[in-house]
Amino acid sequence: MRVPNHIGIIPDGNRRWAVNNGLSKEQGYGPGLKPGLELFKICKELGVNELTYYGFTTDNTKRPAVQTKAFTLACIDAVKMLSKEDASLLVVGNTKSPMFPKELLPFTERKTFGKGTMKINFLVNYGWEWDLSDVLDLETTNRKHIVNSLKSSDISRVDLIIRWGGRRRLSGFLPVQSVYSDFYIIDDYWPDFKPSHVYKALQWYDEQDITLGG
Amino acid sequence: MRVPNHIGIIPDGNRRWAVNNGLSKEQGYGPGLKPGLELFKICKELGVNELTYYGFTTDNTKRPAVQTKAFTLACIDAVKMLSKEDASLLVVGNTKSPMFPKELLPFTERKTFGKGTMKINFLVNYGWEWDLSDVLDLETTNRKHIVNSLKSSDISRVDLIIRWGGRRRLSGFLPVQSVYSDFYIIDDYWPDFKPSHVYKALQWYDEQDITLGG
Repeated sequence: MRVPNHIGIIPDGNRRWAVNNGLSKEQGYGPGLKPGLELFKICKELGVNELTYYGFTTDNTKRPAVQTKAFTLACIDAVKMLSKEDASLLVVGNTKSPMFPKELLPFTERKTFGKGTMKINFLVNYGWEWDLSDVLDLETTNRKHIVNSLKSSDISRVDLIIRWGGRRRLSGFLPVQSVYSDFYIIDDYWPDFKPSHVYKALQWYDEQDITLGG
Repeated sequence: MRVPNHIGIIPDGNRRWAVNNGLSKEQGYGPGLKPGLELFKICKELGVNELTYYGFTTDNTKRPAVQTKAFTLACIDAVKMLSKEDASLLVVGNTKSPMFPKELLPFTERKTFGKGTMKINFLVNYGWEWDLSDVLDLETTNRKHIVNSLKSSDISRVDLIIRWGGRRRLSGFLPVQSVYSDFYIIDDYWPDFKPSHVYKALQWYDEQDITLGG
């Protein structure tokens, strides 16, 4: 099986899951932690080299405070959890905004944990416009120059994006690294993660031809 | 029904259609013209305000010359065909490359034809890296400034992208205007276009909640 080098994870549906389970919306984020670790372990075993988790965005921070607090806490916990694994870990996001949690500042330079087997990027207070805001007027259409000017320049091209929660859109996820990505949508909500979701996504990816736009 | 303001069209599968019909690959482009007009007429009737057709990309120009000639000719014919409709028409692409057909140079400034009812953008020799190459170092994350720095700045945010040919990816299509777009994939190849494709896509779009990342 052809395993993607880099998988982007959009773990959506936490609030809808909470409401369906008789909880308040903000209670949907905590139950997303265990799936994140399970997914990491499956990808590590399969030989995936890089994983990017879509934590929260600058768009998301416009939600009610009780929700922003809950998803921020879940992201802090998730990054700490992943730092106990074999990972080369980097948090990417706008640190100049007050919405960026100071607990994660030490992770904004890539650090190796354990054997550092997998490159993990975790987007926290990420905004596509923030990401693009330093793309210089390079008088060039050279891809490397453009990619190197991104705030997220340490994140590679994404081969496969898996989105939970049924929505068929990027919602601002890494617009430049995603230009050639294949999208796989899972209707189940993220807290209802099952290993079979990943296996099915990878099986589907294996059947796609990769042309990089050619 | 909530009709999208702006629909992006990725008319893929011409070559696979040709091969399936016992033709050589380059013969798959011509039969894509009629569907393009049919789609325009349906969208006009439904009250869609803006349509963007993905003609060909700088990536595509790396294909064998017999194919690049065929898809370039099909794009020239398509633009001329649309200029006979009620359309405010603009061709967007890298005119500085020899792959840009000189026949379409007059269309690189927006022109009104007939009643100019619909805004139509046609991407010809378009490259995502070309599009982003002028995004200035604005020391800002202001969306308007970024969007105005795009080569494709005259093209609005895309609400719905419909892709024919079964592939689930953007292939470099307007990365900035697509950050919040909903994707609808049709397995049939583009020359096998049916009006029901569009109606189903719009029905599906009507069921999506629009959050713009929020």
